[in-house]
Amino acid sequence: MGDTMTRLLVVSASPRVYGYSRRAAEFARRVAIEVEGVEARWIDLYDYKLHPCVGCVSDNVKACYRPCPVDDDWEEIARLVEESDVLILVTPIYWYNVSTPMKCFIDRLTTFENAIFVEGRSRLEGKVAAFAAIGNDVGAIAVIQNLMVVLNSMGAAIPPWALAYHESDDSPLRSDKFVLDMANVVHCSVLMAKALKGLEKPREWYRADKEFVERVKRIAEEVDSEFEDLIYSS
Amino acid sequence: MGDTMTRLLVVSASPRVYGYSRRAAEFARRVAIEVEGVEARWIDLYDYKLHPCVGCVSDNVKACYRPCPVDDDWEEIARLVEESDVLILVTPIYWYNVSTPMKCFIDRLTTFENAIFVEGRSRLEGKVAAFAAIGNDVGAIAVIQNLMVVLNSMGAAIPPWALAYHESDDSPLRSDKFVLDMANVVHCSVLMAKALKGLEKPREWYRADKEFVERVKRIAEEVDSEFEDLIYSS
Amino acid sequence: MGDTMTRLLVVSASPRVYGYSRRAAEFARRVAIEVEGVEARWIDLYDYKLHPCVGCVSDNVKACYRPCPVDDDWEEIARLVEESDVLILVTPIYWYNVSTPMKCFIDRLTTFENAIFVEGRSRLEGKVAAFAAIGNDVGAIAVIQNLMVVLNSMGAAIPPWALAYHESDDSPLRSDKFVLDMANVVHCSVLMAKALKGLEKPREWYRADKEFVERVKRIAEEVDSEFEDLIYSS
Amino acid sequence: MGDTMTRLLVVSASPRVYGYSRRAAEFARRVAIEVEGVEARWIDLYDYKLHPCVGCVSDNVKACYRPCPVDDDWEEIARLVEESDVLILVTPIYWYNVSTPMKCFIDRLTTFENAIFVEGRSRLEGKVAAFAAIGNDVGAIAVIQNLMVVLNSMGAAIPPWALAYHESDDSPLRSDKFVLDMANVVHCSVLMAKALKGLEKPREWYRADKEFVERVKRIAEEVDSEFEDLIYSS
Repeated sequence: MGDTMTRLLVVSASPRVYGYSRRAAEFARRVAIEVEGVEARWIDLYDYKLHPCVGCVSDNVKACYRPCPVDDDWEEIARLVEESDVLILVTPIYWYNVSTPMKCFIDRLTTFENAIFVEGRSRLEGKVAAFAAIGNDVGAIAVIQNLMVVLNSMGAAIPPWALAYHESDDSPLRSDKFVLDMANVVHCSVLMAKALKGLEKPREWYRADKEFVERVKRIAEEVDSEFEDLIYSS
Repeated sequence: MGDTMTRLLVVSASPRVYGYSRRAAEFARRVAIEVEGVEARWIDLYDYKLHPCVGCVSDNVKACYRPCPVDDDWEEIARLVEESDVLILVTPIYWYNVSTPMKCFIDRLTTFENAIFVEGRSRLEGKVAAFAAIGNDVGAIAVIQNLMVVLNSMGAAIPPWALAYHESDDSPLRSDKFVLDMANVVHCSVLMAKALKGLEKPREWYRADKEFVERVKRIAEEVDSEFEDLIYSS
Repeated sequence: MGDTMTRLLVVSASPRVYGYSRRAAEFARRVAIEVEGVEARWIDLYDYKLHPCVGCVSDNVKACYRPCPVDDDWEEIARLVEESDVLILVTPIYWYNVSTPMKCFIDRLTTFENAIFVEGRSRLEGKVAAFAAIGNDVGAIAVIQNLMVVLNSMGAAIPPWALAYHESDDSPLRSDKFVLDMANVVHCSVLMAKALKGLEKPREWYRADKEFVERVKRIAEEVDSEFEDLIYSS
Repeated sequence: MGDTMTRLLVVSASPRVYGYSRRAAEFARRVAIEVEGVEARWIDLYDYKLHPCVGCVSDNVKACYRPCPVDDDWEEIARLVEESDVLILVTPIYWYNVSTPMKCFIDRLTTFENAIFVEGRSRLEGKVAAFAAIGNDVGAIAVIQNLMVVLNSMGAAIPPWALAYHESDDSPLRSDKFVLDMANVVHCSVLMAKALKGLEKPREWYRADKEFVERVKRIAEEVDSEFEDLIYSS
């Protein structure tokens, strides 16, 4: 991929089209484009056909590789992952853990990581990863610590402040804390991706300056309102 | 269910028919029947059609109830759960977490727990739950601690010594430690179920007496050998 | 210990005498005595001199035993643990984990668990354990899942609904949800201890009936108000 | 600190002077100096007087700041943290968690992180952090995922492959896998620190080339042998 371009992929796994995790994901995408000036795309795994990993690697360590033999939409998703410098995972909190399709996504990423045993190097090595967990009860850290150590074990770099969470039955986009943390998940991820390409030398990471705060709050309001409309049209 | 009868359900989620998690699950079933003298059944979730939870509960807290509106094999599994006093979950370790179908099983159990909001009480309350995690790398405790706190949050009782784990690329049924721990997962679960029904007053829990050790090792050898045969016939 | 008597020990580890974890601990003690009618005691580990475990067991598996060679107040605490049927651990959330003295308590409990290698059986086997975590930010489940799997690995039984948590900068004793959950942590623990002694056969666990709710809310108000007074006198 | 210099601090928390965590820590220090060519220092927390955090921040958010009011050796340790670009934490696994002094170290680091509320920015922001966990039983990931999400929440960047673990009663320095992983924890941390200073543009991270492997294995053998000698002289 182009050395001077940064591409960000937001992956959520939320069943409801107007759900809070999808809002947070779309918010992240817009911050990436409008504030950070990078290319960004958002997908939700519930919109894809995705089957569980069948564990080929346990029979033959070289068998887990792309294209994955499971017949579903994985390769379509995999191409988006491949092209991205930054991966932001946004999951609802289901029983102090990720939702099922997010678990499936993680398991299927083994086709990237296991390139170690085929090509000598993980295909996620050096990509940047960051995380958000959203629920109406507790468990955010239990979820995020799992995702963080997993992506790191696959070779991803984790920028400072790579987590945002929201445990409430209100929209996360109406919480100033979440909005600023989520915007910084995007900001720090992009900054890290640029630093690793030698395009920028970070001096500070978390942004809480007035200009940034106002811009991201405006975006949060817009996105939240667009999703509220979805409730009535669905 | 009959007050003097104990029924145990082992649920595994392992893609390969000769896989190590399935061996551990079948071993648990046999120990339950042959050593503990209770009714026992084993299912593997990879043998069922199971779709992700669609989060009805987030729209309407009373909407998550049985029968679950997702059209798949859930109700068949749910009936087995309903009839059981003891639930033993056996999962492979996939990225320091459960496999995808086990995550799906957990999410779909919300139809039991959420009876709180419909009937006033979780349908898992007072059932006994215990756990095993099997992989060729680390992560067993990260997996088990999630399952344990989840099942407890759904109302299950956890007997002493409710965990067995195996992190190696050998068969768990060839490890004396795993075999004894797994047999005790079954033994302590059954003892707890009986104690909660007033049928038995436990004085000791973990069994390591010679008779027990020899019996369960013999069962482990038998089961392991049956599964080895599956490799060649598959 | 007397077969018909139930003794409960609440252990907190909170530095401030008017802190929220201490309030929750004292509330648990009072519910145990006033509602459950059992003997109960509360200690806070910050009031004891406690040094880190020095890992004798790594040199000699039989060396970790009581009395512990570390020269501090451990034996005094250990006697209280020994005499108890139920152990309720209440911890503040410090960095998605327990506070330092609670970690120290856990490590020093090895002197009980490791009796396996000296006497053939853990001295915690069959005791009942339950948990509460209190903080002004997230992390409760990360904390509780660690404590739960640890105590279970030491031989403790975990009753249904063995967890209460509070993530807010208000007093937990002013939260109806926390108060009811914490009271049920006590109730279910006592019920489990009685069931394991053959004194009672549980039919239902979580209590939300009006009488119970009103009694425990009154106790919560009293305890909270007593602790508020401590702020001004400290 | 000098923009072209990289300083690495290894912090372990292992009671025995010949213990495995100390060996891993000393190995990391030597790899940093001999292979990576950076300044490096190792301390073990058991060699310092360190008291539990007293939670000032809960009374007054601005009160937690350096110098910490707790009267012990913290400021001495804090100065080393302050001067470092890279922090490598090496902990024994005690009950699926860090040892007590490591927990204490984490809690006391709040004096760095909480500078957010005094100076507007965490004093750990942009430092690089990585982790190792060593025990003779399971739990490594449960430990590391807590440390990783905590350091990240304090503002640290996590390089790819920032974890090494060893669950065995042999020396980690005799395990080829651990030695290579631990050396890469150091290598990737230094590379990340340099990248964030604009001194280097990483193309690859994990090193498994023959030259690297041979050098770090030789260092591992030397360190292990030096520590074996300590057993006999202690």
